Amino acid sequence: MRSLVLRTLAGDGEIETALSDEAEIAAMLDFEAALAAAEADVGLVPQQAANAIEAACRSIAIAPDALAPGIEKDGVIGPAFVAVLRKAVGAEHGRWLHLGATSQDLTDTALVLRMRDVIAILGRRLDALLDLLRRLRDEAAATPLMAHTRMQRALPFTGGDKVDSWMRPLAHLRERLASVREELLVIQFGGPIGTREGLNGLGDRVAEGLAGRLGLAPAPVWHSARQRIVEFGDWLSLVSGTLGKIGIDIALMAQNEVGTAIIAGGGASSAMPHKSNPVAAELLIALARFNAGLCGTLHQALVHENERSGAAWTLEWLVLPQMAVTTGAALRHALGLVEALTLRAEPTR
Amino acid sequence: MRSLVLRTLAGDGEIETALSDEAEIAAMLDFEAALAAAEADVGLVPQQAANAIEAACRSIAIAPDALAPGIEKDGVIGPAFVAVLRKAVGAEHGRWLHLGATSQDLTDTALVLRMRDVIAILGRRLDALLDLLRRLRDEAAATPLMAHTRMQRALPFTGGDKVDSWMRPLAHLRERLASVREELLVIQFGGPIGTREGLNGLGDRVAEGLAGRLGLAPAPVWHSARQRIVEFGDWLSLVSGTLGKIGIDIALMAQNEVGTAIIAGGGASSAMPHKSNPVAAELLIALARFNAGLCGTLHQALVHENERSGAAWTLEWLVLPQMAVTTGAALRHALGLVEALTLRAEPTR
Amino acid sequence: MRSLVLRTLAGDGEIETALSDEAEIAAMLDFEAALAAAEADVGLVPQQAANAIEAACRSIAIAPDALAPGIEKDGVIGPAFVAVLRKAVGAEHGRWLHLGATSQDLTDTALVLRMRDVIAILGRRLDALLDLLRRLRDEAAATPLMAHTRMQRALPFTGGDKVDSWMRPLAHLRERLASVREELLVIQFGGPIGTREGLNGLGDRVAEGLAGRLGLAPAPVWHSARQRIVEFGDWLSLVSGTLGKIGIDIALMAQNEVGTAIIAGGGASSAMPHKSNPVAAELLIALARFNAGLCGTLHQALVHENERSGAAWTLEWLVLPQMAVTTGAALRHALGLVEALTLRAEPTR
Amino acid sequence: MRSLVLRTLAGDGEIETALSDEAEIAAMLDFEAALAAAEADVGLVPQQAANAIEAACRSIAIAPDALAPGIEKDGVIGPAFVAVLRKAVGAEHGRWLHLGATSQDLTDTALVLRMRDVIAILGRRLDALLDLLRRLRDEAAATPLMAHTRMQRALPFTGGDKVDSWMRPLAHLRERLASVREELLVIQFGGPIGTREGLNGLGDRVAEGLAGRLGLAPAPVWHSARQRIVEFGDWLSLVSGTLGKIGIDIALMAQNEVGTAIIAGGGASSAMPHKSNPVAAELLIALARFNAGLCGTLHQALVHENERSGAAWTLEWLVLPQMAVTTGAALRHALGLVEALTLRAEPTR
Repeated sequence: MRSLVLRTLAGDGEIETALSDEAEIAAMLDFEAALAAAEADVGLVPQQAANAIEAACRSIAIAPDALAPGIEKDGVIGPAFVAVLRKAVGAEHGRWLHLGATSQDLTDTALVLRMRDVIAILGRRLDALLDLLRRLRDEAAATPLMAHTRMQRALPFTGGDKVDSWMRPLAHLRERLASVREELLVIQFGGPIGTREGLNGLGDRVAEGLAGRLGLAPAPVWHSARQRIVEFGDWLSLVSGTLGKIGIDIALMAQNEVGTAIIAGGGASSAMPHKSNPVAAELLIALARFNAGLCGTLHQALVHENERSGAAWTLEWLVLPQMAVTTGAALRHALGLVEALTLRAEPTR
Repeated sequence: MRSLVLRTLAGDGEIETALSDEAEIAAMLDFEAALAAAEADVGLVPQQAANAIEAACRSIAIAPDALAPGIEKDGVIGPAFVAVLRKAVGAEHGRWLHLGATSQDLTDTALVLRMRDVIAILGRRLDALLDLLRRLRDEAAATPLMAHTRMQRALPFTGGDKVDSWMRPLAHLRERLASVREELLVIQFGGPIGTREGLNGLGDRVAEGLAGRLGLAPAPVWHSARQRIVEFGDWLSLVSGTLGKIGIDIALMAQNEVGTAIIAGGGASSAMPHKSNPVAAELLIALARFNAGLCGTLHQALVHENERSGAAWTLEWLVLPQMAVTTGAALRHALGLVEALTLRAEPTR
Repeated sequence: MRSLVLRTLAGDGEIETALSDEAEIAAMLDFEAALAAAEADVGLVPQQAANAIEAACRSIAIAPDALAPGIEKDGVIGPAFVAVLRKAVGAEHGRWLHLGATSQDLTDTALVLRMRDVIAILGRRLDALLDLLRRLRDEAAATPLMAHTRMQRALPFTGGDKVDSWMRPLAHLRERLASVREELLVIQFGGPIGTREGLNGLGDRVAEGLAGRLGLAPAPVWHSARQRIVEFGDWLSLVSGTLGKIGIDIALMAQNEVGTAIIAGGGASSAMPHKSNPVAAELLIALARFNAGLCGTLHQALVHENERSGAAWTLEWLVLPQMAVTTGAALRHALGLVEALTLRAEPTR
Repeated sequence: MRSLVLRTLAGDGEIETALSDEAEIAAMLDFEAALAAAEADVGLVPQQAANAIEAACRSIAIAPDALAPGIEKDGVIGPAFVAVLRKAVGAEHGRWLHLGATSQDLTDTALVLRMRDVIAILGRRLDALLDLLRRLRDEAAATPLMAHTRMQRALPFTGGDKVDSWMRPLAHLRERLASVREELLVIQFGGPIGTREGLNGLGDRVAEGLAGRLGLAPAPVWHSARQRIVEFGDWLSLVSGTLGKIGIDIALMAQNEVGTAIIAGGGASSAMPHKSNPVAAELLIALARFNAGLCGTLHQALVHENERSGAAWTLEWLVLPQMAVTTGAALRHALGLVEALTLRAEPTR
């Protein structure tokens, strides 16, 4: 649905790959294989069945579009996916597939697995951005600039002071990513109504085995308690908002009348060839405001009725992946922008 | 970027076609052809050049992806598009292309042209939905139901009363579409800074000719006055919000404990085969809440600095097409849901 | 709850008076008096009872705080208010009070009555602002300024062009107020479940009489169809957003480095006496962004379940009055700002 | 500005007292006294002057309204407040007041000091709510209920399972409050442009002394880096959203057709005396949605231009205190609701 313009300006190839249909299917296959294995470990599933399930998960190629009719009908990907996979496993072992699990276990855990990749990408970019900013700060340490408060010239300071004010919150958010990550990277495993029923009291042990095999932490069921998702969304918007602040600062410094930010390779105008537009800086502002709005919508999804809300859960799906891509795009543009940026001494007036 | 699940549940083939890259390029070609012709009419452009431009616009095939590097650099599609088209027109006549126009004239008018198609689609669906509701109202006119206020049983009324309460606001919004349409379906034509400069004082006549040829109304320039866009977004969210109200009503009536809404062909559960989930009703709620959030973000874009804001304008692009698709998807699901719906008499208790 | 700082910067005495508890109680008394009289006209209520009710409504003084315990318990003001008033009317005639009406009829109609005053205030201020802008445009018609697009100097234009770009959308919104007003200024009258039950089939005639006596238009019941409210909120946010655009333009022009906007009597800094801050311009931006957010929340309230939703209705109460005050405050600051504003010729560079 | 209805339903006496004008003035006086003392400690201010300042801060009574004209002009409370206090200190020592500080140091630190009280209140209420829920869980441990997913009956579980699903996220948020608190409870001290200028290189030592005397942690300046504020707002909305989930669950369980939640003392209807409305449950939903919207708006304020943005900072003021009150009100209603709640066994069907 995203147009070429949006794919180019607000898209993010690396993040979108991590969140692609193929990645989702792969993560769901990992879930089912790990679940069967964990259930075999505690004797709930015959080892042979677990092996057959794992083998099928490794070899099957599921074309996403084949699942569309099921999704349209069920509102979730789970039933259609499990049906296709069960068929591939075969009649004998297929009945052991997805044992004690529900669609939400599958979908939420597959989301978490992909967000693990997203977090790794974002973390690397934040590191790279902090490196670039550190270099810029050192370069501009003694560059005399004018501080502005309330849109008015205030007092002189330096380029180093300016860049410091950009780095501090980013460094804080980079550090906080560790705890956000810890909170998010857990399995979802609760069964139909979140009680780990129907597993002969072995539900908690299955959960631990499942978590271990997927490299996630175990956690009590969170089917209807969506704080993990929302806190991750908050962090994403904090990052893009912090980059939006850098964007607006650079756009203001790059004004011809101010002239303290020089951006190599600015954007052209179809009507005014003399112009060099601070495109990336403006994008950072737009992406920050977009993500801020999405963040508010994500908080609406906390009002999640009963043991599973189709409405609130779907609302998350509409919002969270976009927030990840938006933050990724913002980091991508910030990297390009800071790389192209030179701070120039405030002209004597 | 949208996953299979979202494409299926929240996408809309017809609306997305109207907003596709191909449709955007076609609309931009229409703009340039009409502009050259209108400028030829008033003697600003040689008729031969206008003919050559029109011919090129009719015959050229522009692959969207070829424009991506220019978009990345410029933040808009205009310069890259005009460069490709100018080359196709050739050296002699190409210099008359895009005369007196700026990227925003091109992009905004091409948006309006596509939204004309979107409005037609949405209007048709609203009509069809009102027809279905009228039929349902007649069928259920005498069906005894219980009205609920503040989540409690209040007093008896009928299925006809219920359906009436859904139809009235939809009929109002259908009617209001005429004025929303009239407000939105205007050209954007202002030149680099919105003053119709550099056209020997013929700018207003060019604007009228351009509008006439595109089947849009003329209007004073609205480069930085984005009320038309926001008012259209408001209408979209009013429609999806109104459908969200129908969705929540049906989800509540379809509760097993209430049992007054019977939905043919509900969604399956991967763990509980006895269930029939009101998938479309829940989707209507999710889409309403998503659009409500986007609507708030669109209002942020009214704070559009100077004669053109890259930041605020990009924010519109991030929001408005999604709102159109969301509203389209909501109407699509509402049509299916109402078609599948039977109201059943409140059981005697 | 609003602090001194917010009362001063974001408050609005005139609008807040129109929305005060006293105004609400007065409007509710008008409703009950008009209802009894309209019901007497059609013979549903004895004329003597209607007279007694009207007399009580004219003479009673209800201290708002006396109603608090009832509000806490019921979630609405209606039951406590009616109980107090009924007691004042006396046992004989009191049973005719509020006949066929429900709390929502009372509360919604009383809201509409007060919003009539709010609309009058906002309309007057818009007129005054347009007058000031017209004067400024004439004064600055020939003042050479530089247009800026994407935060860069573009081409020269005039102060007249600039002010025109501010006026056009405001003039449009002033004009649209007529249709917004027409849509909003209707009675709410539906009885317990919105069907005008229990009035011997005279409900529609009562509604007409009630409307006529209150100077509002009659309308089908809109208990659970909240488009009128939301469309009014949209208009409020369109106004404050349009003023936010003026605010950001002036803040940018007032930058020392640009220097084309001179604001008489700017704000002081506690640390830098040389500064003159564009306080009102910044406030316009803040108020625009605040209202934009509230507007999105108001759209959430369209998802209004059943025949009356306590949750969605209360959400409106939390949002709409704030939006009216915010828009009022924005207009107040805009009036002061434009009055204090001089546009100065772009310096030769 | 808040009406009686809103004060009653959405207000919070205790939180509002902590955020009152009186509390703000007291906190600002604490700031100035501590600053002078810390500056005396490092020899920047004569001890006698610091003593005089402290004495004035202890004895002065500032009527909030006297500061209104200054606030209107300056957009901040600082200059007017400092002027009044300086006059009270007297000519000789008054010039040492507010040395090296700016309005933002004063306002932000005074906000943090009051939010310390707010955090204490919210923490106590969360503890009390968790206690009540623990009791309810024990009472209802064996009560047979029906789990519902996607608005349909799923499988049986118990009241203990249900209450557990409410407690887990609240317990998590209670725990997270410690880190939110640690992040928020820091001083703001940067001077005019955030560099601790003009203090003979002793700025950092003054900051430490100031922090120690106020019982806050020292921190690098965060004038334009507003993550602390936004993260606190996120937490507030997470709490109210989590309570909104409890609210919607109870409203659904309290439906007459379901009947598994009995709420003692529900709300009355002005028209239907037989009803008992789940007023507090609905309020929890409304407050959650209101706060979610505000949370999105607060994220917009991250785009904070330059060294101090009047626009973005004012936007915070418009949002954060309301979020604290809303969360406080939600906790208050949740306490009352859970106290009044009995879970009743699912009837045999």
